Amino acid sequence: MDKTFASFTAPFTASGRAALVPPPPWHYAGWLINVGVRLDTTHGAELVPARLGRLTGKGCIHFADWQATTDGSELLDPVYSQYRETIVITEIERPDGSLYNYCPFIWVDQDISLLRGLLQGWPKKLGTTHMTRSLPIDHAAAAKIKAGNRLGASLSVKERRLIEAKLTLTGRPGQPLGFLTNKVVGAVGLPDLTRPDAPPRLHWVLPDIRDKVASDWHDAEASLAVLPHPVEELSLLGTPEVIGASVGWLGMSVAGATPLPE
Amino acid sequence: MDKTFASFTAPFTASGRAALVPPPPWHYAGWLINVGVRLDTTHGAELVPARLGRLTGKGCIHFADWQATTDGSELLDPVYSQYRETIVITEIERPDGSLYNYCPFIWVDQDISLLRGLLQGWPKKLGTTHMTRSLPIDHAAAAKIKAGNRLGASLSVKERRLIEAKLTLTGRPGQPLGFLTNKVVGAVGLPDLTRPDAPPRLHWVLPDIRDKVASDWHDAEASLAVLPHPVEELSLLGTPEVIGASVGWLGMSVAGATPLPE
Amino acid sequence: MDKTFASFTAPFTASGRAALVPPPPWHYAGWLINVGVRLDTTHGAELVPARLGRLTGKGCIHFADWQATTDGSELLDPVYSQYRETIVITEIERPDGSLYNYCPFIWVDQDISLLRGLLQGWPKKLGTTHMTRSLPIDHAAAAKIKAGNRLGASLSVKERRLIEAKLTLTGRPGQPLGFLTNKVVGAVGLPDLTRPDAPPRLHWVLPDIRDKVASDWHDAEASLAVLPHPVEELSLLGTPEVIGASVGWLGMSVAGATPLPE
Amino acid sequence: MDKTFASFTAPFTASGRAALVPPPPWHYAGWLINVGVRLDTTHGAELVPARLGRLTGKGCIHFADWQATTDGSELLDPVYSQYRETIVITEIERPDGSLYNYCPFIWVDQDISLLRGLLQGWPKKLGTTHMTRSLPIDHAAAAKIKAGNRLGASLSVKERRLIEAKLTLTGRPGQPLGFLTNKVVGAVGLPDLTRPDAPPRLHWVLPDIRDKVASDWHDAEASLAVLPHPVEELSLLGTPEVIGASVGWLGMSVAGATPLPE
Repeated sequence: MDKTFASFTAPFTASGRAALVPPPPWHYAGWLINVGVRLDTTHGAELVPARLGRLTGKGCIHFADWQATTDGSELLDPVYSQYRETIVITEIERPDGSLYNYCPFIWVDQDISLLRGLLQGWPKKLGTTHMTRSLPIDHAAAAKIKAGNRLGASLSVKERRLIEAKLTLTGRPGQPLGFLTNKVVGAVGLPDLTRPDAPPRLHWVLPDIRDKVASDWHDAEASLAVLPHPVEELSLLGTPEVIGASVGWLGMSVAGATPLPE
Repeated sequence: MDKTFASFTAPFTASGRAALVPPPPWHYAGWLINVGVRLDTTHGAELVPARLGRLTGKGCIHFADWQATTDGSELLDPVYSQYRETIVITEIERPDGSLYNYCPFIWVDQDISLLRGLLQGWPKKLGTTHMTRSLPIDHAAAAKIKAGNRLGASLSVKERRLIEAKLTLTGRPGQPLGFLTNKVVGAVGLPDLTRPDAPPRLHWVLPDIRDKVASDWHDAEASLAVLPHPVEELSLLGTPEVIGASVGWLGMSVAGATPLPE
Repeated sequence: MDKTFASFTAPFTASGRAALVPPPPWHYAGWLINVGVRLDTTHGAELVPARLGRLTGKGCIHFADWQATTDGSELLDPVYSQYRETIVITEIERPDGSLYNYCPFIWVDQDISLLRGLLQGWPKKLGTTHMTRSLPIDHAAAAKIKAGNRLGASLSVKERRLIEAKLTLTGRPGQPLGFLTNKVVGAVGLPDLTRPDAPPRLHWVLPDIRDKVASDWHDAEASLAVLPHPVEELSLLGTPEVIGASVGWLGMSVAGATPLPE
Repeated sequence: MDKTFASFTAPFTASGRAALVPPPPWHYAGWLINVGVRLDTTHGAELVPARLGRLTGKGCIHFADWQATTDGSELLDPVYSQYRETIVITEIERPDGSLYNYCPFIWVDQDISLLRGLLQGWPKKLGTTHMTRSLPIDHAAAAKIKAGNRLGASLSVKERRLIEAKLTLTGRPGQPLGFLTNKVVGAVGLPDLTRPDAPPRLHWVLPDIRDKVASDWHDAEASLAVLPHPVEELSLLGTPEVIGASVGWLGMSVAGATPLPE
């Protein structure tokens, strides 16, 4: 690429203005519904390459309603800043015994986040997430943070419902779960079409996270259903058993990535 | 309709389960961006029938991010509860000198709300609203309620941007505006296809509102742009001049409607 | 409504330009996948009011990819002309022994068609239809009209897959099916919010159809699946048994409606 | 990547079933509206790196309504096969004097095609294309291939209308235009987040196209409008002057890519 071209991603122009993804830092803030789960590890080797590690059986399904911005301008034109996603997190133990998180599946409803995800090693595809929001007023439709109030979340992929969660707030303090607890190893790589028979060589990276802030987390009881799908492979995780749930707000910034230590 | 059929709206079945809109009460809670405006009244008689009243020149553009429920079940499956809409409110003076609000234009992104609107005399069509949300954390992407923080809102109709607003929070208390200040007269009526040359006979109604609660309103400075559109008729309101803006959360319930007093 | 207001439907303005639905005639042309079915009539009285008639057990699921226009202008801005829908047709026998079609359920992906449908007594809600198109070239992705070529169609409602069909063209001439064979009785009526406890009084109408043209119909073998749904009530029709299928193109115009003869 | 993992793209699993993009060959068939244009070359060096070549001033805007499949299965579940896109094609002269096409901008409405495009060097982002279809029946809404019939096409990106075209069929044979006439050089490359300050190193590739078939092309007169946009950079091509237009159906397959000869 000629040095005078500034685009961080396609399309490639001198100014870089039209690039789908501007360079980091990327700032995110969102409303999160976290459902901690125990997962079947029987098929773990079909999800996590042996060289990377093995499933411990701990995991989390996150539903997230994000705002993202680089320089603040996206907040003035929120079609550029907002998106929702459903994130499957599995805890892995590396061959050296260290613990990380790994995301085998994630679905988002917007292109900027999809590509930003691929750059970070989040395996994003399009999918549609809905999640009840908790509003700071006391009303039958507001799902205020208060014991007994109920919330729902769902994911649909290619117009089939894939994940459903129902939560009841307990009024107790909650725990951070899933990607809130440990760094997520990303798997970065695209195939080379000049060698169309070869799957891509992957690189493992860790995100460079800064300015992480969170509200209190609020405890919830939850039920979760994973439905059959002809393409998606969530069934590799068995029938997730809910072991905890929480809701709250998170902000964080990503400045880049570092290679996963060998 | 046979008495044994329970559907409040189509489709019509014995149980009424599949009806697009269940009977009221309907409970709503949402995040609102309100931009108060002064409107040109020159073309008012093309928007408000003389028998109903005349424009006073006061108005408001609302951007709303709603959750709605009847019995709480929609909050567990939020694809049924959530939608966003942009609402144009004009103040009218009735022939008897009384003041009301009237909604000449409104666009929503979901069918349940669209039909519920037509029943109430809100002239809803599909349109896509985006609006920055204020999250209760201090982060570059969170647009927290705090002096100097910025938010945006937009409406697109049939894939053309129609309204854009940009706001800066001032840190001062804000005012309720638009439909938050006075009841909105609804214009209810559908044409009869057996007389396809006749426009519908309209009935004017007032909503039966209950359980209204609001957060504090937060003041903002705002700019607003209304863009040309080949179908929409916002140009009948001239170039709106912003006279105030506020943001906050509202909850309310609608139990039915009453005829507008003659 | 003051006579000077021209809008056929909301919003109501003097010019009528912004009205969601202009007055008929409405011209439609589309690509149709028709799956003829035998339906369980056990629950027929929960779908068809006794005064209107009873299910005969014959029916059809149509998937339709439409273009609609009034004066031709919508064809120049096709976001206004195009939509897809899935139509459930049941044959009914009226108390006097006459045979008609009746549509208990229909889902469309666009607002103009949704409201035009309600005016005609089609119980439209939003839903997403996908259907393979047959292109006039011989290529692996073209699904050309040719024996052995395969096509699919699907409907999703509120992000859950509801109906799936798979077809194989036989190369034989096909039959018109469903609404292509007999007029469809429409059930028109909206509830009155000033009496929120009363379901609407329905009026039965027949469409005034003109200028009907069709391509040849092409025969197909088909399989059909109707999936469970928490809101939709297709289960009232039992498990539809496919008795024939066809594909082709149809054009027709609707000039208004007439009351169903008593 | 461990050899036992089959995914061609993310997500990465042993079976590869959930991968967003399966390996080629990819088979495409679609309906095309092609508007040939003369482009301003003043800002060409901001669009095409000097090392690759320079704009000749010839170009084309394509609107395409595609079906794509690998093994035929997507045609049975068309939510996986169908998408629409708008393609900007510019002719370039390489430093050695050879002529190619280059695509500076392209917008698609689906994730599979988006990623497949990035692999081929098409700079895809999400955008919404609408285009009138020509149906093989003679009706006011069918836009049949016949002199005098009119069609429209449009692109919207992030809910702003960006390109509009209006066509009138002349009844004369038409020409293939744009990417139908010469191979399109792809610009492949993603940035490396471990070096977040560096734009990506691009590789130039040519597609390995097979089984290309087309219907007749049908001539049209066309007008084209490119509208301002705060992010997109179509203004770098000046005000395109229409020099010809055609419509028709195309099928082709892509088996991989080859490096662009130096």
